Amino acid sequence: MADSGPLSADGNLPADFAVPSHVEEVKVQMATFAARHSAAGRVVVLITSGGTKVPLESRTVRFLDNFSSGRRGASSAEYFLELGYAVIFLHRHRSLYPFTRLYSGINLLDSLQLESGMGGCSSGQVVVVDQQALPNIAKVLKRYQVVKDAGLLLSVEFSTLSEYLHLLKAAAQALSPIGSKAMFYLAAAVSDFYIPVSDMPEHKIQSSDGPLQISMKMVPKMLSPLVKDWAPQAFVISFKLETDPSILLERARRALDTYRHQVVVANILDTRRGYVVVVTPDTQVELVLTDEEASRGVEIEDRIVSNLSVAHSQFIAQNQGM
Amino acid sequence: MADSGPLSADGNLPADFAVPSHVEEVKVQMATFAARHSAAGRVVVLITSGGTKVPLESRTVRFLDNFSSGRRGASSAEYFLELGYAVIFLHRHRSLYPFTRLYSGINLLDSLQLESGMGGCSSGQVVVVDQQALPNIAKVLKRYQVVKDAGLLLSVEFSTLSEYLHLLKAAAQALSPIGSKAMFYLAAAVSDFYIPVSDMPEHKIQSSDGPLQISMKMVPKMLSPLVKDWAPQAFVISFKLETDPSILLERARRALDTYRHQVVVANILDTRRGYVVVVTPDTQVELVLTDEEASRGVEIEDRIVSNLSVAHSQFIAQNQGM
Repeated sequence: MADSGPLSADGNLPADFAVPSHVEEVKVQMATFAARHSAAGRVVVLITSGGTKVPLESRTVRFLDNFSSGRRGASSAEYFLELGYAVIFLHRHRSLYPFTRLYSGINLLDSLQLESGMGGCSSGQVVVVDQQALPNIAKVLKRYQVVKDAGLLLSVEFSTLSEYLHLLKAAAQALSPIGSKAMFYLAAAVSDFYIPVSDMPEHKIQSSDGPLQISMKMVPKMLSPLVKDWAPQAFVISFKLETDPSILLERARRALDTYRHQVVVANILDTRRGYVVVVTPDTQVELVLTDEEASRGVEIEDRIVSNLSVAHSQFIAQNQGM
Repeated sequence: MADSGPLSADGNLPADFAVPSHVEEVKVQMATFAARHSAAGRVVVLITSGGTKVPLESRTVRFLDNFSSGRRGASSAEYFLELGYAVIFLHRHRSLYPFTRLYSGINLLDSLQLESGMGGCSSGQVVVVDQQALPNIAKVLKRYQVVKDAGLLLSVEFSTLSEYLHLLKAAAQALSPIGSKAMFYLAAAVSDFYIPVSDMPEHKIQSSDGPLQISMKMVPKMLSPLVKDWAPQAFVISFKLETDPSILLERARRALDTYRHQVVVANILDTRRGYVVVVTPDTQVELVLTDEEASRGVEIEDRIVSNLSVAHSQFIAQNQGM
């Protein structure tokens, strides 16, 4: 990594990133959530998911974005819940969401049917789900309702890079009191670049002004203060997505050296659904789905989450009493 | 407008914009749709909706985007259908869709209920819609099914700017045979800028290379060949969105002068849901929603579509026999 940008020594974000008005309120929610579940003997994972929006204008018409449907974060949340984690899901507005993501490509109205006067067992019109159109919907709905009723999933949304940075900092501080029982699973696709407010035009850039030159500064690396200052006892996983396989592992190792966190999950854009490498300071494990597994609907996130939850348990045991 | 970019005299798009593999197939679908409905005495509108994605890398991780949920296009489609139009809905993948857009902010699983063994009137588990959670769902579902059964809505998707440009050209050529009975309602938020393939790095731009400089070229203006060459008899509406009210009307008039089409719908980002100006070469009509109307759920698109369908009828009458 080059210089990590203009983050001050105390880990304050530069004034370029406006503080979202609800950040303190959300921080209290997250701290309460973590304390409650930790007291009940649960581990807590903060998952970040989806891309960040980087405005090019103050009154934003145009923005820079990162490729990310939020699929990895949303599916991972389900597997963490299955293993008994309480989950804070910090995700991009309108990115994929746990459980509902299974039906994201389907037009809602194509999957509903009107039924009227069902033999006296209900009055008026009933709208019923076509269970062919939404496969496994009864089963998924049951699982979703169990999670919801138990309050195991806390949802927090961001859209812009500024919102993401401030909410991640707030989350780190909110989870810090539970120490090693907190996992950070940083799967969001965060922009490396932004335009400082001072360089940003107020109004929509006019095409009549001719071709466009954009100069972007580097976003401060949050991992550094997160690991050092905000949640120093937590178990932290970052993701490294590259398109060029030849530089992937070197980049992953370099990130571990720089930030001193526990795990990098490294993956290549084209093969990310069937292949990742889980890299730690001492180990390097390839997780691979066979074609047969993929065709049965097995998801690589199931493997990633299993691997990491074992490592997290060991980490907690090692840090017991610290 | 400045120079309209590298569109050749015959309206061919530059090689920078890769041709989507399905464009010829979609063109046939659109032509068949238009011919069938025109033969049945219907007018046809092509609506474009949502923003365009402009890749910064060949194997795309980052892209430039335009603010647009697709709300205007999706709601307008419903009002056009109500007035008897057949609608081709050329929209950004995952942008808002007619009818389903009414439930877009709602978590599907929060609006479903499991009901088992409903007093003998159905076997097994039934998943039923909570009609409090999805207001008017029975009514909306009925309207959707009428439209679907009558084949009045043809959906075509794009994601990137290249796909949009090629599909719009194909649509214009497909609708050209029905002459003045075709309306083009160009509500999509199309990027004015792009990065030529030749200037684009293949792999993900590395943040370790330091701050980012982006040089973007201007996108060829499609309105010019659309009006002159591809569908010269059609009724064409473009949209002009600005953030600065002081330049809005001058920009709208300049677009009409430059492209010689029929209507510009001009609007300001902050007030776009309650105020637009419908600008033609000879007229300028303000459409405004009162606070009371807005609180009753009246939508400005209802007014826009009413206004334009009247103008379109007059346009057809004037062009009869041409």
